[in-house]
Amino acid sequence: MYFSKAFIPILKNNPTEAKIKSHKLMLRTGMIKQSSAGIYSWLPLGFKIMKKIEKIVREEQNKIGAQEILMPTIQSSEIWKESGRYDDYGDEMLRIKDRQNREMLYGPTNEELITDIFRSNIKSYKSLPQLLYHIQWKFRDELRPRFGIMRCREFYMKDAYSFDINDDEALYSYNKFFLSYLRTFKRLTLTAIPMAADTGPIGGNLSHEFIILAETGESKIFTDKRIFDVEYDQTTVEKKSLEDLRKKYEFFYSVTDDKFDKQEFEKKVSSENRLITKGIEVGHIFYFGDKYSKPLNASVDLPGGKKDFVKMGSYGVGVSRLVGAIIEAKYNEKDEIMKWPLSVAPYEVAIIPMITKNETSNLKKAEKIYKILNSKKIDTILDDTDENFSSKMKKFNLLGIPYQIIIGKKSDGDLFEFKEIGKDPENLSIDQIAKLINNQKEQI
Amino acid sequence: MYFSKAFIPILKNNPTEAKIKSHKLMLRTGMIKQSSAGIYSWLPLGFKIMKKIEKIVREEQNKIGAQEILMPTIQSSEIWKESGRYDDYGDEMLRIKDRQNREMLYGPTNEELITDIFRSNIKSYKSLPQLLYHIQWKFRDELRPRFGIMRCREFYMKDAYSFDINDDEALYSYNKFFLSYLRTFKRLTLTAIPMAADTGPIGGNLSHEFIILAETGESKIFTDKRIFDVEYDQTTVEKKSLEDLRKKYEFFYSVTDDKFDKQEFEKKVSSENRLITKGIEVGHIFYFGDKYSKPLNASVDLPGGKKDFVKMGSYGVGVSRLVGAIIEAKYNEKDEIMKWPLSVAPYEVAIIPMITKNETSNLKKAEKIYKILNSKKIDTILDDTDENFSSKMKKFNLLGIPYQIIIGKKSDGDLFEFKEIGKDPENLSIDQIAKLINNQKEQI
Repeated sequence: MYFSKAFIPILKNNPTEAKIKSHKLMLRTGMIKQSSAGIYSWLPLGFKIMKKIEKIVREEQNKIGAQEILMPTIQSSEIWKESGRYDDYGDEMLRIKDRQNREMLYGPTNEELITDIFRSNIKSYKSLPQLLYHIQWKFRDELRPRFGIMRCREFYMKDAYSFDINDDEALYSYNKFFLSYLRTFKRLTLTAIPMAADTGPIGGNLSHEFIILAETGESKIFTDKRIFDVEYDQTTVEKKSLEDLRKKYEFFYSVTDDKFDKQEFEKKVSSENRLITKGIEVGHIFYFGDKYSKPLNASVDLPGGKKDFVKMGSYGVGVSRLVGAIIEAKYNEKDEIMKWPLSVAPYEVAIIPMITKNETSNLKKAEKIYKILNSKKIDTILDDTDENFSSKMKKFNLLGIPYQIIIGKKSDGDLFEFKEIGKDPENLSIDQIAKLINNQKEQI
Repeated sequence: MYFSKAFIPILKNNPTEAKIKSHKLMLRTGMIKQSSAGIYSWLPLGFKIMKKIEKIVREEQNKIGAQEILMPTIQSSEIWKESGRYDDYGDEMLRIKDRQNREMLYGPTNEELITDIFRSNIKSYKSLPQLLYHIQWKFRDELRPRFGIMRCREFYMKDAYSFDINDDEALYSYNKFFLSYLRTFKRLTLTAIPMAADTGPIGGNLSHEFIILAETGESKIFTDKRIFDVEYDQTTVEKKSLEDLRKKYEFFYSVTDDKFDKQEFEKKVSSENRLITKGIEVGHIFYFGDKYSKPLNASVDLPGGKKDFVKMGSYGVGVSRLVGAIIEAKYNEKDEIMKWPLSVAPYEVAIIPMITKNETSNLKKAEKIYKILNSKKIDTILDDTDENFSSKMKKFNLLGIPYQIIIGKKSDGDLFEFKEIGKDPENLSIDQIAKLINNQKEQI
């Protein structure tokens, strides 16, 4: 992509309406545009990042055997009346009357709808387990939407649902998602800690939030520092291996403020290991047994001939929210330097030639490199504008494309100034640069 | 995928509520499930097909230089009041009041919202043309939703918008989409004919519908048969080449009933070339100049220093509707045989072993083949159930996976019975089968 053709409307200064760094950077670099309170359009830069996050989330769901479906955004109130949540849900549910005066709503979550799909189609324990997920827009009518896409009204979310024959199997499904979430966040280069959490309006008695540390986070967390060292690279999707992983995490005290108990914290965690800080919730998993299957009458035939309500869990990842969470974790606001993880970067490398009206030889060099990198399937942006060089560099530090090829006074024959954001530049040939980037990509 | 693990809830018989073949087949093969009137969930089989169509639509948009964004589903009424369409749009617009009693709506189309994005960010002719598109859920509150996803309320659509400095450039943008649509439908193996059409609530004075022939279509069409022979393989995205293409099409009379004029038809088309039939609209493009940019005050600085309203067009493809349209075009209902185009098939090949409770050697063979095909990146489904063989074959004829490997009595050493739906079987080795399928894939 040539920068002059790209629809990336960059602001000269930080927008005054934004309070937290992700909101500031997303407006500043033209990733999003607010269309009404708590509702945003995603412009090309933000859209590309969100799509790459979505792809990683999807791949990790598929790896544990979950199957993708797609439920609609608009639901009938009827199933919510069956489950008893229609009245419970309160004003955050966007309630709608259609032209025939039927009560509809914009789904804030999908336990009811997926249970309806299940009960219409699955009748026997032989078809279990079932792990189904979808990635779809949700709406929660927040009273005071704020912080950009971090606490907005219309948001993009992956929600998965598991259906099992009994508690034991259901916990096995729960643990599969537990591992899959750790792997997902790792590919986004985030350290997310699973923490025992309250179940809120979803219900049930077992729940973990996945939290990444960030000063701007809305969740207060109390944890044993050593939890950051728990290893899961060797864990497999076998029952025993997953149980061991859960035990390793549960050995350390780690809760959000809903579940905080000062006495317990101080008893279980020696003072040097205590960490009280803030974080951002990026995933939340729940086990709630027959909370929905019972009122909605979703039962299966058991081996002996009896019937029982299917045991369910649900598992959410905020896909649009992760865009902001990554910025909160990675953006150096003081120096105005962002670096996107290569796995979700909007472009993999930026070619930044120094161009003046009378001197376009650098642009010609840049165009040559651009063609070579494209032919090697490296997603490249070339800044072909005649903006002055120091503003260009400032702009690209905000855009956060992880690699830069700078073509200015220092480029020397076949060697070019190559820079990974935050590191020292070095002089490399195009072949070396392409090899380096493609090697990094293989490790995502 | 093993069939026993896949969530593909197949019905034994045609559902009685469905009237047209796409609706019947989609319910019968578990592609969709209705959740409320005119609102559907997409189950794995239908979802995979829709995603593959989406990918092709996206690639063809990108090829003409359009950039992808994503606008929200819920819009404020304010911009619709600015354009004057808030009152015009009638009951098909799903109107919503949020908790603060603000008037919102579920977007039936996005001319207003995209114009708002444009006017906030683009100020100069130097940034033109801009071609922006998104693929998003829309809602039209049909009074009588019917025919499954063909005339439903919540539907998935690609809509693109072009912004240009003057009529001449705007027509160039229009023609780019014209070509891109022909290419898109061709990759879906559909013959879509562009026809002069009314502009309806979108407005403007130039519009084409892209129609595929189908008896169940809702559009009546009047055309010169020779239009089917117009060639566009040599057309490029150059201005002149695109103009020539438009002329070639416009040489032939071809309209929908809104524009039909009996006298003109009979004068321009000799009786042996007249075709009066029905079709399904799969795309619709519009040029409407400053219809939205004027009331919404979206203007740009011109070269001389003056300002003018930007000239706009819009371009829609019904992504979810195309799933049904392909079935209407390809499904042989009498013999109950469907064949998905390889480009969008839910799986590329099905391995169908004859299995009984006492004889599982065919299953073992099938599993071996399955591994080999997966390693060659062929998307394969293996029917590991012990359903009797003739129901299996009946089922796979409905599922429409274009290639079948049948492992029964006839398989002989290293050769297997390989069948392309609708053609005679032949005995081939796995290597030959893999090569044949991968060759076909390269041509998509």
